[in-house]
Amino acid sequence: MAKKSIAVLDTTLRDGMQGEGISYSVRDKLSIVRALDNIGIKYIEAGNPGSNPKDMEFFNAALKLKLNNSKLCAFGSTRRKNVKISEDPGIAALTSVDVPVYVIFGKTDELHVTQILNCSLEENLDMISDTVSYLKSLGKEVIYDAEHFFDGYARNGKYALKTLEAAVSAGADCIVLCDTNGGRFPAEINDITSLVVKKFGVDVGIHCHNDCGLAVADSISAVLAGAAHVQGTFLGFGERCGNARLSTLIPNLQLKLGYSCIPENLMSELTDTAHQIAEITNTSVPKNTPYVGRSAFAHKAGMHADGVLKNSASFEHVSPESVGNERRFLMSEMSGRSAIMTVINKIASGFDRNSPAIHKIIKKLKESELAGYQYEAAEASFELLVRKELGLYVPYFKLIGFKTIGEQNEGVVRDASAIIHVAVGDKSEMTAAAGDGPVHALDCALRKALEVFYPELKSVHLIDYKVRVLNHSAAAAAAVRVLITSTDGEHVWSTVGVSTDIIQASWQALVDSIEYKLIYNEKNGRIKN
Amino acid sequence: MAKKSIAVLDTTLRDGMQGEGISYSVRDKLSIVRALDNIGIKYIEAGNPGSNPKDMEFFNAALKLKLNNSKLCAFGSTRRKNVKISEDPGIAALTSVDVPVYVIFGKTDELHVTQILNCSLEENLDMISDTVSYLKSLGKEVIYDAEHFFDGYARNGKYALKTLEAAVSAGADCIVLCDTNGGRFPAEINDITSLVVKKFGVDVGIHCHNDCGLAVADSISAVLAGAAHVQGTFLGFGERCGNARLSTLIPNLQLKLGYSCIPENLMSELTDTAHQIAEITNTSVPKNTPYVGRSAFAHKAGMHADGVLKNSASFEHVSPESVGNERRFLMSEMSGRSAIMTVINKIASGFDRNSPAIHKIIKKLKESELAGYQYEAAEASFELLVRKELGLYVPYFKLIGFKTIGEQNEGVVRDASAIIHVAVGDKSEMTAAAGDGPVHALDCALRKALEVFYPELKSVHLIDYKVRVLNHSAAAAAAVRVLITSTDGEHVWSTVGVSTDIIQASWQALVDSIEYKLIYNEKNGRIKN
Repeated sequence: MAKKSIAVLDTTLRDGMQGEGISYSVRDKLSIVRALDNIGIKYIEAGNPGSNPKDMEFFNAALKLKLNNSKLCAFGSTRRKNVKISEDPGIAALTSVDVPVYVIFGKTDELHVTQILNCSLEENLDMISDTVSYLKSLGKEVIYDAEHFFDGYARNGKYALKTLEAAVSAGADCIVLCDTNGGRFPAEINDITSLVVKKFGVDVGIHCHNDCGLAVADSISAVLAGAAHVQGTFLGFGERCGNARLSTLIPNLQLKLGYSCIPENLMSELTDTAHQIAEITNTSVPKNTPYVGRSAFAHKAGMHADGVLKNSASFEHVSPESVGNERRFLMSEMSGRSAIMTVINKIASGFDRNSPAIHKIIKKLKESELAGYQYEAAEASFELLVRKELGLYVPYFKLIGFKTIGEQNEGVVRDASAIIHVAVGDKSEMTAAAGDGPVHALDCALRKALEVFYPELKSVHLIDYKVRVLNHSAAAAAAVRVLITSTDGEHVWSTVGVSTDIIQASWQALVDSIEYKLIYNEKNGRIKN
Repeated sequence: MAKKSIAVLDTTLRDGMQGEGISYSVRDKLSIVRALDNIGIKYIEAGNPGSNPKDMEFFNAALKLKLNNSKLCAFGSTRRKNVKISEDPGIAALTSVDVPVYVIFGKTDELHVTQILNCSLEENLDMISDTVSYLKSLGKEVIYDAEHFFDGYARNGKYALKTLEAAVSAGADCIVLCDTNGGRFPAEINDITSLVVKKFGVDVGIHCHNDCGLAVADSISAVLAGAAHVQGTFLGFGERCGNARLSTLIPNLQLKLGYSCIPENLMSELTDTAHQIAEITNTSVPKNTPYVGRSAFAHKAGMHADGVLKNSASFEHVSPESVGNERRFLMSEMSGRSAIMTVINKIASGFDRNSPAIHKIIKKLKESELAGYQYEAAEASFELLVRKELGLYVPYFKLIGFKTIGEQNEGVVRDASAIIHVAVGDKSEMTAAAGDGPVHALDCALRKALEVFYPELKSVHLIDYKVRVLNHSAAAAAAVRVLITSTDGEHVWSTVGVSTDIIQASWQALVDSIEYKLIYNEKNGRIKN
């Protein structure tokens, strides 16, 4: 039996932009469009030309993209009250953008019509009908978003249905029921959606907000009631508590309930797409995000790790591979020996689960975690820790000393530089470098000094640098944890440092990163990967 | 009609600890117990004495606390196979802790019994029954957690119900149905819970994980089916994607569905409790968290801000005050004039919404946000920006210059110091200070220099210092945004700085913080609050 198709509309670029701390450049938006097209999202609601003039520039560029799976949509509102549709500036701005689909929102709730729009209930119906008819007369696909539908239905169900009737009679291709305030629960959404699906002969959609933490559940309940179109944002961005998170909703509908939302072969791109969009928007995917978070298949309890190794279904509801994620065993004081053994087996043989060396590693791990280190996201530093405890570590260089200097005068000139002195064997190298701030200067100086001895370090560069304050109460003197991610163009590895001094913490992570690369280069003799 | 009571069990200290990056000191745990007691949580599942020896030390201290609302629970598993209950070390560890309630988990799923426990289905029933009987014989309240209940029920419903029967016959006070893998959906949870509620004469509980983003919805569906006990973690901590988040579930049940979970007068403590627990665990409440997040009632779209000002119900599903949160209008390029006017009205009169000054402020705001500033969490810096644009700003001091020096030798000695030279009027002051790292040294030196002129700065200190890397791709040279929160013991304010140099970014935020305090001190003439 063919799977029932659900049309997905992503509004990361429109409703998502209402989220606190979210803003995009035109280039960001184009990259997001490409990412959403690549994973097979049917509709991309890309902006509101009437309310945001920057969106015009974006649409001009976006219309030149060749999209394989997606249709671009522009968003706008119904015409203003007492204005002819041909003279409405919002409609003019909207239709100046030549996309295949327009999404129009209108008012459902009589309270909003009378108190916020200040117009009559009849006039609102005309506004909906005029706007939809006009956009259909341009030969476009029209999606009608019924704002505050469920609240409006609760207040005056008859009028709420009349607004839908106005949109459907005027030719809307899809009517979307919006829980704009995010206050509604799955059972009532199911009942009301079911009624609307039965009443009108067009596709019905659902648009939910997460103010009760129920946006995904609400959307599912609407689909189970017959909705054929879902709206949300890939990472859950949106005003207040956000919109329905599509990276959760899509696999729930497709992998667990048997609907078809995106092409089957693209489901394994789900995790990468989520992290790509986070990267573009300079946010991060919270670790505990269903399906795509870095912890979504991470096992910490020793017993769970053992269980998963015996039978993966025992603590995993779907396979991590099905959504392009991976299983992880966390290195921590609670993790079982199995997880630590996995790392040891990479490095050396001859150690079993009860070796005294394993006890030493667990002890060292606990001490380090107490001091603020975290190896869960710094596997290279953890491997170095294990090597040190196993006596398999030989330092590649010795620090004789460094000095960083930052300077600012009269509020204008500023300058940072670092002087470094290192020794390798019986040779030493002293050098200096400038940089954007002392950490950057130190990074540049260290590489410069060591490249004299290890030219292979030329290919290494940092791709991520994160600072976390560990103990807020002491403020600027609090300990910080620095996480660095490095690459040599082929491999990627992460390291960690902790200190009350950000430069010292960065130094530790930099040194681990360089040593890990040097060990890696000798891998024929020393590393199994 | 009296509201139906739902018993809430918080397992932040036990299941929550399985979350990636989560670990607690004994002191942290005691503080969490106090916070949960203060908000009226009925059961606090506080640890697993059998698997974590540190928990013994904690329980000894916790049992001395005087709790007003909560009962402490210790958690353990059913006895091992082929071991007499009196000789089981786990049960001995558990019962050495003299709490009023024991929570015991046992296996429901025949696959787990045979493949992971490696024992017969009959033996597992005996293990459940023996353990519950024994704990009841000690006069304790016993809650039985049926691990993997829904998965087990799907595989072999008859056997799953037999495990519950074993617990109930042995005297369990409550049987809890666990969706341990987090893979189940509300409809099936509703059906199965309803069947269990009807079959057994004891309280039925629900324990959900969030692997499908449905833990809260699943829990609600169980309550609607008759469950009288819910388990979760206050902030949603837990393995993989976490447990049901109680800060969402409690207000959903109590404010929206009319159940009683915590004393009514304590609901307004919900937001504070969430942030308190985040503070204790050195995490933060994600801004978009339902009910308690800083953005949960934050309005960014100009139209929504206007709507809320006209009628708060138009974009808020409950009042922010009901959960102790607050309404905010975000300062950003999308925010309407209304929000900016609120700040201006604090500072000066005579500006209306269409003044050229307002245009200038909006323009400046856009430029600054493009450069990486964010005023949403730095209201003091925003007020200073407005003052500067309105011509109402007079600097309190002038920087002549500063220099920071960090040093490390032979990997051991390290040292950071700052030299500063400032002028106030025609006098200048040069001084120096040492600190933990260059930022801390600079902070100390600046205050030291300015206290000569402004003794009131003695009461000011930093309470939070946050660093955010804005553009990961350029790594250590990327721009950073520093957010500083300061207090004078009475008021709290936040400021922001942005630069590729962390010291420069910190400097900007430090200067704003000091200037804001000095303006505040002159408030009779200049500030309305």
